[in-house]
Amino acid sequence: MNENAVEELVGRVGRLEDEAAIRRLVMSYGPAADAGLTSFAAGVWFEDGVYDWDGQGAPYEGNAAVDEMLQGDGHQGLIAAGVAHFSGPILVELEGDHATALNYSLVMRREEGRFYLWRVSAVRWDVERSGSTWRVRRRTNRLLDETGGGRELFGAALGELFGEGPR
Amino acid sequence: MNENAVEELVGRVGRLEDEAAIRRLVMSYGPAADAGLTSFAAGVWFEDGVYDWDGQGAPYEGNAAVDEMLQGDGHQGLIAAGVAHFSGPILVELEGDHATALNYSLVMRREEGRFYLWRVSAVRWDVERSGSTWRVRRRTNRLLDETGGGRELFGAALGELFGEGPR
Amino acid sequence: MNENAVEELVGRVGRLEDEAAIRRLVMSYGPAADAGLTSFAAGVWFEDGVYDWDGQGAPYEGNAAVDEMLQGDGHQGLIAAGVAHFSGPILVELEGDHATALNYSLVMRREEGRFYLWRVSAVRWDVERSGSTWRVRRRTNRLLDETGGGRELFGAALGELFGEGPR
Repeated sequence: MNENAVEELVGRVGRLEDEAAIRRLVMSYGPAADAGLTSFAAGVWFEDGVYDWDGQGAPYEGNAAVDEMLQGDGHQGLIAAGVAHFSGPILVELEGDHATALNYSLVMRREEGRFYLWRVSAVRWDVERSGSTWRVRRRTNRLLDETGGGRELFGAALGELFGEGPR
Repeated sequence: MNENAVEELVGRVGRLEDEAAIRRLVMSYGPAADAGLTSFAAGVWFEDGVYDWDGQGAPYEGNAAVDEMLQGDGHQGLIAAGVAHFSGPILVELEGDHATALNYSLVMRREEGRFYLWRVSAVRWDVERSGSTWRVRRRTNRLLDETGGGRELFGAALGELFGEGPR
Repeated sequence: MNENAVEELVGRVGRLEDEAAIRRLVMSYGPAADAGLTSFAAGVWFEDGVYDWDGQGAPYEGNAAVDEMLQGDGHQGLIAAGVAHFSGPILVELEGDHATALNYSLVMRREEGRFYLWRVSAVRWDVERSGSTWRVRRRTNRLLDETGGGRELFGAALGELFGEGPR
């Protein structure tokens, strides 16, 4: 019996579990935000995590600031009218206790009895292991619009994580 | 060689496989429904599974009722005009032979040569192991609109599954 | 200690890793295409891979042809105005060194300061193992519109991969 084979397997399974845990973390934000569970949604971040959501105005520094934003009139008005903070599947790159995930965020709103795409963003999640789970160190959103913000976010992150091409 | 280490690993791998099987189950519905493969789509449910799709009218009780709905004029008209029953990534919580998954459902339709968002829903999937695979016991959809139905579905499910915050 | 148990586990973990690698491959295309990283995006395909993207005109044969298309005025105009080539979660069926994945592709564009759904497609990815990773042999897109192209793509693929019903 090869003890090393088992040890190697433990590492491989651990990495698959890490990826699943990060997926779970990212997929927790939208339902919690749309349900108005503000401290649950903010709990996706570390206490001193950052939500740099638009490039306009200052980022939210600390999960208490995220919670406060979600309790504010802006977000509360959205959820009263109906809103979906949808997160797409993640492209994740693990590096030990750190990981970076990229995905698309679609925010859909109601208007005259119809849903429409309000914001379509490129998102970068910088996450870190926190005990047996993971938390967000920084989430950065940039619109995929004519400003080029989303384009630059995806371009810089792909270059940094993968270099010249896909793994 | 640690026999327990291998046994523990078997359990961990099994849970990852369960999550993959549930993902596959959830992701089977939309393509089958949009292709008009009505019995395939209904086969995602147990024979006596329930599709509580809107809160309006009675839920579909049994997969034969789901199949019949999909064969009906309403659904057949949608697929003739072009429709996408899109399911977003799931947030899944396993508990042995049961699991609960949450996601967003977007139904997109055609109108005057354009696609639009017809329905944007919060979805809860209650699934159970069935031999070597999984099937749906109950699927519950609620619109994320001004009625608050989707908001309440997500809020109740997150509280029940995770308590105060994300895992 | 059961040597066979460990060997079986190695196979199961390998299949989970394959699924993760295919997910990563599929999720790489959109961000790279939207960032204007044309050779990165084209690198998702084998050198002689095919992108049969619409059923109109000839498919792109070879990843150099995909790269050229992405460098062309059409795609470059899209990304200057803002565009999202969003890929939904995949339904994947592994068979050794080959796999087939199905998902939805949503292409969202800007118009008068708003996002709208330009194309909603059924997608089939035929992928193959390439050393320690995977690459696309053929990607086929068909619109889920009144032509029935998307409906037929999903119907044929589900029948071929799964037969009468979901796994």
